[in-house]
Amino acid sequence: MNARLEQQIRFILEIDKLKQIYRKSRIIGKERFENDAEHTWHLAMMAMMLHEHANEPKPDLLKSLKMLLIHDLVEIDAGDTFAYDEKGLEGKYDREMAAAQRIFGLLPDDQRQECIALWEEFEARETSESRFASAVDRLQPMLLNFENEGQSWNEHGITSDRVLARNRQIGEGASELWSYAERLVAEAVEKGFIAK
Amino acid sequence: MNARLEQQIRFILEIDKLKQIYRKSRIIGKERFENDAEHTWHLAMMAMMLHEHANEPKPDLLKSLKMLLIHDLVEIDAGDTFAYDEKGLEGKYDREMAAAQRIFGLLPDDQRQECIALWEEFEARETSESRFASAVDRLQPMLLNFENEGQSWNEHGITSDRVLARNRQIGEGASELWSYAERLVAEAVEKGFIAK
Repeated sequence: MNARLEQQIRFILEIDKLKQIYRKSRIIGKERFENDAEHTWHLAMMAMMLHEHANEPKPDLLKSLKMLLIHDLVEIDAGDTFAYDEKGLEGKYDREMAAAQRIFGLLPDDQRQECIALWEEFEARETSESRFASAVDRLQPMLLNFENEGQSWNEHGITSDRVLARNRQIGEGASELWSYAERLVAEAVEKGFIAK
Repeated sequence: MNARLEQQIRFILEIDKLKQIYRKSRIIGKERFENDAEHTWHLAMMAMMLHEHANEPKPDLLKSLKMLLIHDLVEIDAGDTFAYDEKGLEGKYDREMAAAQRIFGLLPDDQRQECIALWEEFEARETSESRFASAVDRLQPMLLNFENEGQSWNEHGITSDRVLARNRQIGEGASELWSYAERLVAEAVEKGFIAK
């Protein structure tokens, strides 16, 4: 039996748990919260469809996709931390690094190393691939929230100033997408979906 | 306002509905059925991790990933057809082609064409990219079913012979994965997870 394949399958079974990690946004038009696995698929679709809007130098799409596909796996152990939960954000990196070591540690060594490197690159946001990947990761919940008339912003008392401050980094990956996001927030304020 | 971006965002919002299309397999260890969006994410992870097992000539991974990401979107209109539902499989291609025209028709023309071409290539299984993508699409529910002690096989009275006949095409994309799948079915029979 192929020992590498056994390790890879064990990893593939383990990460099924991502389907049980729930976020703070709901899917469009429904009461149900979105889980990390379907969120990740949606981000990968956004990266594929919005790649032309990435800042120069254009990111390598395959690398951005790989980063996105694996970026939330650490939440299987560390849980989802709400973007506006400042207390929760303390110590997040350490909790997530321990998770990365365990979960990617199921893989053969070369793949473990590749995944941890991709995850660290995503977190550091210093390359065009990670800045673009991070931009779609920030934009997607804004789109869901707008469509759901501000649901998770209202449930957690988030004002438009905080949304703008928190997500401004979208512009580092894709300034056209940040312009779009700014207009979306302005429209959300106008429509009463979010407090100013 | 960027008209292309408006079209792309409309598409991105529309495909959120994939999160509401439920399959016949359940997520591992849970009562809940798996939806198409999280299933698709799982397939993309499998393609990334199992690429080395694809038959020669090795498929272009980016192309296989793009195919997988979009391959189930037609089910937003056409619904999920159970792999062993022979009646449901009749007329499936026509229903799905109409869905592809509507859903990908939301995109700018070049992207609509690219997506329809990717979807048709996936369905035809004539290239190494589509054969590999299809192989992981067939293997994934077998893994979930095995872990859930044969759940959807038993619920629908599927015997091991039918599972083997239906999924033999995995070998056209990745013969090592088909060997693995054959052993899995043999073990499922031994453990009483599926009738022979």
